[in-house]
Amino acid sequence: MLAITAVAGNVPLHHTVNNALRLVELAGRTGVPVYAGASGPMVKKLVTAEYVHGPTGLDGADLPPPSIEPAPGHAVQAIIDLVMSHDGVTLCTLGPLTNVGLALALEPRIAERIEQLVLMGGGFFEGGNTTPAAEFNIYVDPHAAHRVFTAGIPLVMMPLDVTHKALATPERLERFKEIGTPAGDAVYGMLSFYERWDVEKYGIPGGPVHDACVTAYLLEPGIFRGKHVAVEIDHGTGPAQGMTLVDWWGVTGREPNCLVMNYIDADRFFDLLVDRIGRL
Amino acid sequence: MLAITAVAGNVPLHHTVNNALRLVELAGRTGVPVYAGASGPMVKKLVTAEYVHGPTGLDGADLPPPSIEPAPGHAVQAIIDLVMSHDGVTLCTLGPLTNVGLALALEPRIAERIEQLVLMGGGFFEGGNTTPAAEFNIYVDPHAAHRVFTAGIPLVMMPLDVTHKALATPERLERFKEIGTPAGDAVYGMLSFYERWDVEKYGIPGGPVHDACVTAYLLEPGIFRGKHVAVEIDHGTGPAQGMTLVDWWGVTGREPNCLVMNYIDADRFFDLLVDRIGRL
Amino acid sequence: MLAITAVAGNVPLHHTVNNALRLVELAGRTGVPVYAGASGPMVKKLVTAEYVHGPTGLDGADLPPPSIEPAPGHAVQAIIDLVMSHDGVTLCTLGPLTNVGLALALEPRIAERIEQLVLMGGGFFEGGNTTPAAEFNIYVDPHAAHRVFTAGIPLVMMPLDVTHKALATPERLERFKEIGTPAGDAVYGMLSFYERWDVEKYGIPGGPVHDACVTAYLLEPGIFRGKHVAVEIDHGTGPAQGMTLVDWWGVTGREPNCLVMNYIDADRFFDLLVDRIGRL
Amino acid sequence: MLAITAVAGNVPLHHTVNNALRLVELAGRTGVPVYAGASGPMVKKLVTAEYVHGPTGLDGADLPPPSIEPAPGHAVQAIIDLVMSHDGVTLCTLGPLTNVGLALALEPRIAERIEQLVLMGGGFFEGGNTTPAAEFNIYVDPHAAHRVFTAGIPLVMMPLDVTHKALATPERLERFKEIGTPAGDAVYGMLSFYERWDVEKYGIPGGPVHDACVTAYLLEPGIFRGKHVAVEIDHGTGPAQGMTLVDWWGVTGREPNCLVMNYIDADRFFDLLVDRIGRL
Repeated sequence: MLAITAVAGNVPLHHTVNNALRLVELAGRTGVPVYAGASGPMVKKLVTAEYVHGPTGLDGADLPPPSIEPAPGHAVQAIIDLVMSHDGVTLCTLGPLTNVGLALALEPRIAERIEQLVLMGGGFFEGGNTTPAAEFNIYVDPHAAHRVFTAGIPLVMMPLDVTHKALATPERLERFKEIGTPAGDAVYGMLSFYERWDVEKYGIPGGPVHDACVTAYLLEPGIFRGKHVAVEIDHGTGPAQGMTLVDWWGVTGREPNCLVMNYIDADRFFDLLVDRIGRL
Repeated sequence: MLAITAVAGNVPLHHTVNNALRLVELAGRTGVPVYAGASGPMVKKLVTAEYVHGPTGLDGADLPPPSIEPAPGHAVQAIIDLVMSHDGVTLCTLGPLTNVGLALALEPRIAERIEQLVLMGGGFFEGGNTTPAAEFNIYVDPHAAHRVFTAGIPLVMMPLDVTHKALATPERLERFKEIGTPAGDAVYGMLSFYERWDVEKYGIPGGPVHDACVTAYLLEPGIFRGKHVAVEIDHGTGPAQGMTLVDWWGVTGREPNCLVMNYIDADRFFDLLVDRIGRL
Repeated sequence: MLAITAVAGNVPLHHTVNNALRLVELAGRTGVPVYAGASGPMVKKLVTAEYVHGPTGLDGADLPPPSIEPAPGHAVQAIIDLVMSHDGVTLCTLGPLTNVGLALALEPRIAERIEQLVLMGGGFFEGGNTTPAAEFNIYVDPHAAHRVFTAGIPLVMMPLDVTHKALATPERLERFKEIGTPAGDAVYGMLSFYERWDVEKYGIPGGPVHDACVTAYLLEPGIFRGKHVAVEIDHGTGPAQGMTLVDWWGVTGREPNCLVMNYIDADRFFDLLVDRIGRL
Repeated sequence: MLAITAVAGNVPLHHTVNNALRLVELAGRTGVPVYAGASGPMVKKLVTAEYVHGPTGLDGADLPPPSIEPAPGHAVQAIIDLVMSHDGVTLCTLGPLTNVGLALALEPRIAERIEQLVLMGGGFFEGGNTTPAAEFNIYVDPHAAHRVFTAGIPLVMMPLDVTHKALATPERLERFKEIGTPAGDAVYGMLSFYERWDVEKYGIPGGPVHDACVTAYLLEPGIFRGKHVAVEIDHGTGPAQGMTLVDWWGVTGREPNCLVMNYIDADRFFDLLVDRIGRL
């Protein structure tokens, strides 16, 4: 892993930077630099979601303040520098696409050098989770998303259609607790805190695990299934702003620009997670 | 039944008028007047769907030309006159909402006199069938839909989420053929022709039966389940034009304006259809 | 003159109907039928402008209540019937285009039978008077305007660019008073009341005379100059809603669809007005 | 002058960088660093205007290739660094606002440190020059413009309403030639080349001098007059995209965010220009 770049999203930037630092410490990976990125979207004002994730964005994990510092320099510049100096970089985004959108705006040549971008965001048959049409990460910065989805980068998208099938049921949560390590406890605490929101809202037996789907895809892509289709971002100012228009049935005649996943083998996914968290 | 009002939609108006006349003759209900309505949407240019329904809009039914004539006068005026002169009229729309939108524009007082409007149209977790965001009936005339959805009329919506669960499988189709009457044969022929499209597109075991859901709801509402929620129509000019933004999870804070169905007991539905078609 | 059709605009419909009746009585033209039309726009909610024209829409004219009644039937139907039964009808619109838009929606064949439509509305180098982008008549019903401007009807447009050059200065107002007839007094009173608004807002030496430009064009087209250009209506939901995008410099490559006036010989215009009002 | 930052606009970035370098050499100001900035807009694809300014963007000036190089680093970073390290920086933009928009996105704190931003762009009573609604600089990057106009920076805008009153008539052009220096010749050649476009299009006696209005304002603000008003950028996807909605008459109730000029004393302006060009 070359670096972690934080961005404003579920909570303001200083919290997401702090959370990234706490997590690399928890994982014993303090050699991975953490860069602070954009403190708000490219064009819109920032919208956050403390009502889901708690004021810190990592409530429930009960982690101490970080003892390390972010790396010097802006995350956007770090993305540009790393992509231009390394061949075949894969980007993984778990929040709004602001940092990548800005990197493309500053240095468009990164587009053809990025091996792939795997993102958590969007939704189609699952609808939105922030408005009826839009998922949070895309809704927060639809302009960055539009820029990324029209840049020609090979894209893999983990939408709500996948993550809402990766539910942290009580039985699955218990497995993290049973690991008996600080990392296991933190994951258990964080997911237990967070799941209350979706369990209540959707009436499902556990909270969806969103972001780990991206990492899991890199480790075991066979856990997921999807289709290579055309995706357009509604970046206008109407009621569907931030919607990912996924042309699943091929009705638009547009060129496919994204591998959109719609299936996850949830059991294999949690096996993988427990295994990997257990190794930390 | 007070009247049938035809509108341009899947096919141009003269075909939909003709089809309505042929069907009332087939059903032996020639006492029901058929009015010709709008030949195109309120604001947009007409888009049709002969690629699904064949050039006549009723291909496969193999019905003779009608021997009766449409009723004199415009369907929009007929809607106004009937609603103003009868208490508690229920409107059922199986196509674009143009006629109702125009009736509201000409005589807004009908809004508070309409008992309910049951419509086939829209979609949410099922997505669109014409664009990634929009279902055909709403897409064709999003302005009429917006007018109707903001008029204060009690609305019941049968979206693709319902109709895509009412599949005319070969076994179910066979039951219409077995009736052994002209009506049974026509339904069998029409659904057999039409289903090829969706079976191929969606890879499902039968074509969805859209419009009969509206009638079935009036006869046996218990076949359906849904939720009273806020629905907004994207009537702007962006890529989600014609989308029904269904606030299924109550995130917008908007007042519910529509009973949106998302479940159908398909077996009971086809039992009902076979029974009723068999009586003709 | 075949008929007058009232529409909701500056004030609600019942006032505009009443005003039309009072004016035909004042003019001694009670043989001209007055029809009540749409009480609101095709798609949007009604916006009015009592702050400019007073609660009745004709404040200052000091006219008695009408002793005559509106003609039976809807203005939209009257437009359709008159256009279909008379060759070469000219439509003159002084308010939102709702009645004409609805007539086109109900009976599109009128488009090719209308000789021309002369409208007061829109603006380009003069900007808007209701929003920075939009003039009142188009802003109130941009969807009707879009329908009319895409219907293929020969159009003549009197925008704010013309009417803001037809200023009722005190000297010109005085000429109506000097006529010494009820009609002269009414025009004097009405324009005196109304002009206070624009004089204060724009700092100009008199209120613009908007609607009479349409009639004057029919009587003496040589008073005006303009250009045949392409006009598009912003009928989306953004901040320029209701704007008339006048392609004055021919940059869009679109086909001209409207004769847009930008010059009026104001002296000849007021001479004509005084002469004609004086004959009543 | 701290620096010049080039951006893609009338012509692609490598030309605008080159032009900036040639001009600092011509002016004997090679101590001013020239930074290359964004090669395209923040969100949209780049649109250029070689049909106006020639393939190099500086056709007619007949200048040799530059013998100096751009400064190392990105213009956006240079803007951030200069603003954060100097008090009271004034920004002057003569092209799309992309560099400033990106600087705000990377480092929002510059907003409150910028003394003022004087920009050439937009138009209101003059309309657009690229579409009927939009001026070129804003049209190319409406998202950057929206970001800048909502950032709280003190703004001064030189719209087409000003620059179309600063016409390089043959008499005025001749004065540059009479200077008899390379700088005078270059200005003469460049304006002579460029004016052909607008003279033909608008039928005016000389080409408008756009960008020098910004510099002139800094030297002699009294040459201009304007009003402090609210300006909104249409950054949606409709036909008025890139329009500057200038609330000149104060109808929107929005807070003023920009000093919008609408008057220039053209004679004083050209006197100033001739004087300053003559000193080089």
